[in-house]
Amino acid sequence: MAVQERGERSKRSILEAAASVLDERGYDAASTTEILARTGLTRGALYHHFPSKEAIAAAMVAAQSEALVVPERAVKLQAVIDLSLEYARRLQSDPVLRASVRLTVEQTSFTNPGRTPYQQSVEALLGLFRQAERQGETLPGLDLEEVTQYIVGAFTGIQLMSQVFSRREDLMDRVSAMWRLLLPGIATPGLLPRLRTTPSPSTAAHTAHEESLSSEG
Amino acid sequence: MAVQERGERSKRSILEAAASVLDERGYDAASTTEILARTGLTRGALYHHFPSKEAIAAAMVAAQSEALVVPERAVKLQAVIDLSLEYARRLQSDPVLRASVRLTVEQTSFTNPGRTPYQQSVEALLGLFRQAERQGETLPGLDLEEVTQYIVGAFTGIQLMSQVFSRREDLMDRVSAMWRLLLPGIATPGLLPRLRTTPSPSTAAHTAHEESLSSEG
Repeated sequence: MAVQERGERSKRSILEAAASVLDERGYDAASTTEILARTGLTRGALYHHFPSKEAIAAAMVAAQSEALVVPERAVKLQAVIDLSLEYARRLQSDPVLRASVRLTVEQTSFTNPGRTPYQQSVEALLGLFRQAERQGETLPGLDLEEVTQYIVGAFTGIQLMSQVFSRREDLMDRVSAMWRLLLPGIATPGLLPRLRTTPSPSTAAHTAHEESLSSEG
Repeated sequence: MAVQERGERSKRSILEAAASVLDERGYDAASTTEILARTGLTRGALYHHFPSKEAIAAAMVAAQSEALVVPERAVKLQAVIDLSLEYARRLQSDPVLRASVRLTVEQTSFTNPGRTPYQQSVEALLGLFRQAERQGETLPGLDLEEVTQYIVGAFTGIQLMSQVFSRREDLMDRVSAMWRLLLPGIATPGLLPRLRTTPSPSTAAHTAHEESLSSEG
């Protein structure tokens, strides 16, 4: 294994251990000692990657922007919908992303995230919405900044509610419902029946596969 | 002052002190000793009202359902909108309600709230939506349980985002934007132009008055 690759693996294993500790204790009660114990790494190896608990938290928050994968779609509103569905799917299967979102929505002594994770999501969606507008997919007179701010806020809340109601098992259904209710206020009437609000068959298969491998506990 | 009235005042002063401690430290790090210090009450008086920190938290969570005031409106969708605007206004001005919402969205050792606060909001809205449906205000074929679950989730997220972006100063604008975007997927086209998505003039005046008296700090 190349040195760089091994480094990436250690980093990922630290983030995964930190995610499980954060999930149990929350940020303030989590300790690097406990995180270390779950990785089997030395303290020196931990500090090589992350000089502090804050640095681990910051790397986790950065993982949120990595989950914002813009899919290639001719219809840009379909790209927006699919981005949100893929993000939801990752939330179901990736404990590091879940811990990252929790760090964003809770008020702890780790105050770094602030607006950044929301802003990154807004930027990713806004780029797609501007293209959608140029292609004549959106209703006239929409304030696209307002639309994207609203979608990011609404998504944040429904994934939180999905966690409380079903440990995120019903998240895909909730995201689909969001789009069915929201699209008549956003998309042109002609485009509306052509937009798919559920995961594409390939994504759905992917989800079922990953879910059988993961356990949220 | 009657004994009962004095008791209610002590209770409210404990909840307000607890709200300020929770706001600074979060649930797990908050102590009844610190809450007591801010009320000037004896420990006996505290325990008379609340036998434990959990009991204080439970009373706070109950404060959320008290904020769900169903307004009298001939058009029931207008009642739904106004309920959400009034709730948003209270969030801006009432620290106990803010602490209550924080207890609901954060994962702490206080696990009591769970679904209850969400469910109470869903029930309040669902009652109004069923009336709206009977009065022919809603589009045919809506799943009203799904609609209300979505609205409660979306509201939860936008108030969280409003807190991060502006300490909830822009909350009324965000709630108005939610309704403008959402109503075309919910209300009949004929009703749409008659629905008001901003606070009524009397509510707005009320807000300005209370805001000048309160300080979120």
